[in-house]
Amino acid sequence: MTQEILSAMKSIVGEEHASSAESVLKLHGKDQSSHRVHLPDVVVWPDSTDQVKAIVKYAAAHGVAITGWGAGSSLEGNSIPVKGGIVINFGRMNQIVQVHEADFQITVQPGIFYKDMNKALAKYGLFFAPDPGANASIGGMIANNASGTRTVKYGATRDNVLALEVVLANGEVIRTGSRSIKQSAGYDLTHLMIGSEGTLGLVTKATLRLHPLPEHFSAVVATFESTPDAANAVFGVIGSGLNPAALELVDSEAIRFMNMRVTNLPEKPTLLMEFHGAAAASINAELELVREICDDSGCIRFEAGVGREERDRIWEGRHALGEILFSVYPDQTYLITDVSVPISAYPEIAAYANELFDQLGVNGSLFGHAGDGNVHTVIFAPKDDPEKQAVLQTFNDYVVQKAIELDGTCTGEHGVGIGKQKYMVHEHGEGAISTMRQVKHLLDPTGIMNPGKIFDF
Amino acid sequence: MTQEILSAMKSIVGEEHASSAESVLKLHGKDQSSHRVHLPDVVVWPDSTDQVKAIVKYAAAHGVAITGWGAGSSLEGNSIPVKGGIVINFGRMNQIVQVHEADFQITVQPGIFYKDMNKALAKYGLFFAPDPGANASIGGMIANNASGTRTVKYGATRDNVLALEVVLANGEVIRTGSRSIKQSAGYDLTHLMIGSEGTLGLVTKATLRLHPLPEHFSAVVATFESTPDAANAVFGVIGSGLNPAALELVDSEAIRFMNMRVTNLPEKPTLLMEFHGAAAASINAELELVREICDDSGCIRFEAGVGREERDRIWEGRHALGEILFSVYPDQTYLITDVSVPISAYPEIAAYANELFDQLGVNGSLFGHAGDGNVHTVIFAPKDDPEKQAVLQTFNDYVVQKAIELDGTCTGEHGVGIGKQKYMVHEHGEGAISTMRQVKHLLDPTGIMNPGKIFDF
Repeated sequence: MTQEILSAMKSIVGEEHASSAESVLKLHGKDQSSHRVHLPDVVVWPDSTDQVKAIVKYAAAHGVAITGWGAGSSLEGNSIPVKGGIVINFGRMNQIVQVHEADFQITVQPGIFYKDMNKALAKYGLFFAPDPGANASIGGMIANNASGTRTVKYGATRDNVLALEVVLANGEVIRTGSRSIKQSAGYDLTHLMIGSEGTLGLVTKATLRLHPLPEHFSAVVATFESTPDAANAVFGVIGSGLNPAALELVDSEAIRFMNMRVTNLPEKPTLLMEFHGAAAASINAELELVREICDDSGCIRFEAGVGREERDRIWEGRHALGEILFSVYPDQTYLITDVSVPISAYPEIAAYANELFDQLGVNGSLFGHAGDGNVHTVIFAPKDDPEKQAVLQTFNDYVVQKAIELDGTCTGEHGVGIGKQKYMVHEHGEGAISTMRQVKHLLDPTGIMNPGKIFDF
Repeated sequence: MTQEILSAMKSIVGEEHASSAESVLKLHGKDQSSHRVHLPDVVVWPDSTDQVKAIVKYAAAHGVAITGWGAGSSLEGNSIPVKGGIVINFGRMNQIVQVHEADFQITVQPGIFYKDMNKALAKYGLFFAPDPGANASIGGMIANNASGTRTVKYGATRDNVLALEVVLANGEVIRTGSRSIKQSAGYDLTHLMIGSEGTLGLVTKATLRLHPLPEHFSAVVATFESTPDAANAVFGVIGSGLNPAALELVDSEAIRFMNMRVTNLPEKPTLLMEFHGAAAASINAELELVREICDDSGCIRFEAGVGREERDRIWEGRHALGEILFSVYPDQTYLITDVSVPISAYPEIAAYANELFDQLGVNGSLFGHAGDGNVHTVIFAPKDDPEKQAVLQTFNDYVVQKAIELDGTCTGEHGVGIGKQKYMVHEHGEGAISTMRQVKHLLDPTGIMNPGKIFDF
């Protein structure tokens, strides 16, 4: 079967752009999570929408699974080809189609990495704001509705996509949306596709909203004695109507890891913030208010206006956190939680997760996009200790249960992938899940598009 | 048949909350557009989700059409029951379920009018930002993805809805979304419902995002010699990265109408703007830049920082514009265009529409939410002059054609309703429309939900 698929793919994309070499398959069988590796049968690198269309038509005709692949930086097994088949690597479809400079928009192919895109956009004074940390592909960000440190001000990926070109499971190509900021012309297929994790179609082109690079900015580092104190300050800042461009909570353990490689911060629970504005005066006024709020929550050290270099180092450390953690515990299985709650519930969920570390005897640390109510924890267990590994799942179950009780969600930005499927009915209810399944069956009747994700087919 | 439906409805909602009196039917057979009146068979006022569910189950069992009704303020025939049947008036489901003050959120029933809701929210220092001018119901705003003067800063309705309760065509009740700002847990059913004009389900509860009332604001009135000059200034303001809370273009004819009742402005093409901010200093810095940009586009009079009373009068005039126009031409048919384009194309589409007035000999005026690229024109023709009325359609066809050429849309905020159906395939392509139709058939297989809207079943 593999040979048949391989030669079919080669006939579509050319001899050198399809492979079933073991080394290639291994690279496309895992993401950044600890979910089990599954190898595809064939990896293919198309260079046009027409080629993607031909690949999907082949897969549809032969009942072969298709999984899209960007940077492999997903965190919930979203891109692991659990049913084998074809992985479409979008690495050759990584072009900027057009910069619509005057409209603060860009049209790109899905394989472009967002850091590369933002580098190219710097000369226009523009940037794509959602910032997942890892150098994700735009296609992957759309598939998972990724977000990150700047979402608190600028929104998630779904808030910054205007139009898509999508290849459906039957090989048909559709356009969704338009380049108008305002659109009320029929069903919102753009948002149906965003966050569908490649289970309804494959994005082959996207028009994104951009923002002007901020003229003035200021970073803030606020240190607290306890994680609950810091979490209270988060709620204070957001609840007062301030509009930070980033508001991250990093616990003392996570700071310790950041300090190993990059930063030199006090090893205490810390808020990392950034404020953007058109005028320095307005930022300074905001900073005064932020300082008062932090003081009221027991802040023990407050540093505002840190210079560009130091600010860059802080964010480098924050973004490197995952990588550092994994390298410190190379032989351990890890699990990253991604619950998100209304901001008023943030102190409660943060304190709860913090207590669970002790209660379950779990080795981990807490951080996350606090300003959005998004809490990440990374927890570890030895690979050869199934009992401890089961505790990781228990930890996740408890935190998710609590988040849903607090009107939140099991996943703020990593997507459902493999690991969050078991929470879907509890979060949404049977009715909504049944509706989602019906939409899946409608648009992918034979279940070839990234099967085994979000829910079983 | 009517008697059967009526007694079925009375058995669900009680004797006094269903009616087939002619006066009642007439009130529910039209909206604010010139689309033909169609009377429903019965109007029913449920007071709970359970009653809505029972009504829909009855309709599904008997193949009776169901159309939701809020304020009747739609502008494209969206709420006209073209196939008769049952109109559900949500007037009794108009309660605030909960103000989530600390989260800047509110949960409401769909029948609440947004001005009433914002009045109730004032004491919390919060407001729901989308502002369609007319005192629309929240249910209607969600159905049409309404927006308005403040969307340029705060987004459309779809950007400000977090969670819904929806009664589907089979009578099943589903929940979509959550109260978390960030959500990546499966398909985005919330956005599938927003803008679907009641053709996929009926919203019975909604959780909305709110914003803090601005601490400081300033209004600007800038007068120009020509509409193209004013349109150029619009592009200048938005293209410079300024973030107005409102940016409206109103042509001299429209100013003349506003002056009849409310304002006292020079009868020239005019930009009406508003800026919101946390600090007076930052607003003043913005205003200087706005003045420079307007001057560069040939502004002949620039007034900034107009007081609260005068500012309120300007917006009262702007919002009363439609009503004034209709009362000036009581015996005429009118047509309101609603195209929207990328901002760089705004000067071109505004100039084009302006020229068409002369070219087609049409009586009308141009205004709209310029900062979003949204152009409204209202054009008139005598009711007894079919030739002139055909010209209205030609005008609309031309403007829509041009907007789509410019990567825009046939409707920025009024929805497809009846009048925009003919443009849907041209705008989206056969593939996307076919996908939309499939979704409609999936969720409403017998076609009872607001039939005849968006597309023929």
